[in-house]
Amino acid sequence: MSTFYDCIPCLIRQSLDAVRRVTPDKQIHERILRDILKATSEMDMALPPAAIGKMVHRRIRELCCSDDPYRESKERFNRLALQLYPFLEERVKHSLDPWETAVRLAIAGNLMDVSVKSNLREDQVCAAIEECLKERLYGDLQRFADAVAHAHDILYLADNAGEIVLDRLLIEQMPLDKVTLAVRGAPVINDATRLDAEVAGLTRIVRVIDNGSDAPGTLLHDCSAGFRSHFNDADLVIAKGQGNYETLIGLSKQIYFLVRVKCPVVARDLGRPVGSLVLHPSGSGHALH
Amino acid sequence: MSTFYDCIPCLIRQSLDAVRRVTPDKQIHERILRDILKATSEMDMALPPAAIGKMVHRRIRELCCSDDPYRESKERFNRLALQLYPFLEERVKHSLDPWETAVRLAIAGNLMDVSVKSNLREDQVCAAIEECLKERLYGDLQRFADAVAHAHDILYLADNAGEIVLDRLLIEQMPLDKVTLAVRGAPVINDATRLDAEVAGLTRIVRVIDNGSDAPGTLLHDCSAGFRSHFNDADLVIAKGQGNYETLIGLSKQIYFLVRVKCPVVARDLGRPVGSLVLHPSGSGHALH
Repeated sequence: MSTFYDCIPCLIRQSLDAVRRVTPDKQIHERILRDILKATSEMDMALPPAAIGKMVHRRIRELCCSDDPYRESKERFNRLALQLYPFLEERVKHSLDPWETAVRLAIAGNLMDVSVKSNLREDQVCAAIEECLKERLYGDLQRFADAVAHAHDILYLADNAGEIVLDRLLIEQMPLDKVTLAVRGAPVINDATRLDAEVAGLTRIVRVIDNGSDAPGTLLHDCSAGFRSHFNDADLVIAKGQGNYETLIGLSKQIYFLVRVKCPVVARDLGRPVGSLVLHPSGSGHALH
Repeated sequence: MSTFYDCIPCLIRQSLDAVRRVTPDKQIHERILRDILKATSEMDMALPPAAIGKMVHRRIRELCCSDDPYRESKERFNRLALQLYPFLEERVKHSLDPWETAVRLAIAGNLMDVSVKSNLREDQVCAAIEECLKERLYGDLQRFADAVAHAHDILYLADNAGEIVLDRLLIEQMPLDKVTLAVRGAPVINDATRLDAEVAGLTRIVRVIDNGSDAPGTLLHDCSAGFRSHFNDADLVIAKGQGNYETLIGLSKQIYFLVRVKCPVVARDLGRPVGSLVLHPSGSGHALH
């Protein structure tokens, strides 16, 4: 998905918000702000928003002299999700439709995203997870279950820390020997890296790879050759979150996007309201983006 | 008031919104967007937001080859306000406290502002005016009445078209021979110019001048020498709206700001919540901005 004009003010707001979370130094805030204004004034708007995100967060890490300024935030969300995990696992097990419950919880986890909602409190996470079990889910759960059942090589693209613990609930509903989980290649915002997959216990149950990139999405040209090869070989890709949606929608490949819609631009693109839970199949007939 | 970092993404959103109202041409939208991104990346952030507004709207007029792209919108709001005027005039006359009612209505008029709320419908205006008569008003009405009673030379700075008709209700509560009304020197957004003062019938009851500037506020250095002289001579300035607030707050002069708070930055600056009606005295002891 190309960057829409409306994404630009939002990306600038997010960048300001991001750098404020990392340092109280106003000079750095102003430098980041000027950098992103200048970069966006010249950028190719056919690129997806994650391309700007990558640039901004690299610059934040550089100016703040920190490889992983969101580590603490990621740990906090991982801890919270791990505390909830046993209860949610029971919930899946005893629900009338464990597949549906697991899909809903995996999408629910997608709200642990500091880039969109910066002041997310833990009690809000719990309330929102509860909501997600009741809300309308847009998408065909049976068709998704069939796609998983027929796939030989499933590539599951994680999104954020914390969320990745809830992804485990869904992954555990799949044939584990067929699943490869991919995380980001390096820290960017609170996106999950290998460390988060380990903390979530996922490295013990499925093969985990990283994509070699530090973009908050999956910019294929920025990913490692190894990841691209996995991506090409997979006959089913499951992509979590808006960053993965924005960067992969339009590819002629069987991809199921599991997204909690967080902004009006993606809402318009998906034809679903902001806030909704979406299971969106891509592929078949779409032009290569 | 300096431009806060948080104003930048908002100004960019407003600019995009403004140009879309004026033309459907996406190439012009993109040019405006790139122009404002570049300009803000280099701007002096000690300037108030109106300095950016001026630049952006000049560029929009230039690219759209239109001297006054908001003329239609201004006429629509003037018409609506003139339709309401006789009813509101009766309301002021028969209220227990005509001064308070007139102040509230003048502030209520301040919501007819296309720069902040772009899709304002007419029924929303009527409902919001009704709300303003009941809501809490932050400020000392008696002290303001005393300031008006003791002043010899009152300069009333109008803000938007439409709103200016409601300003008339308040101006009619004042000694008319002491009041000078100032409008913008040239069209910018839906800010009131001399034409709107005429339509509102104000040129028939008070002296009307223009400030010689096309900024959406009162940037004194950008105003005509004639206006600055009026400004300096006035012993009481009444300034409507956020644009005037942002450009004049901090001056060592007796100014009463009549503002409906429309954004979190001004809310923080004033110490009042977004949406509130504020009558805010400035002056005495403030450093020159």
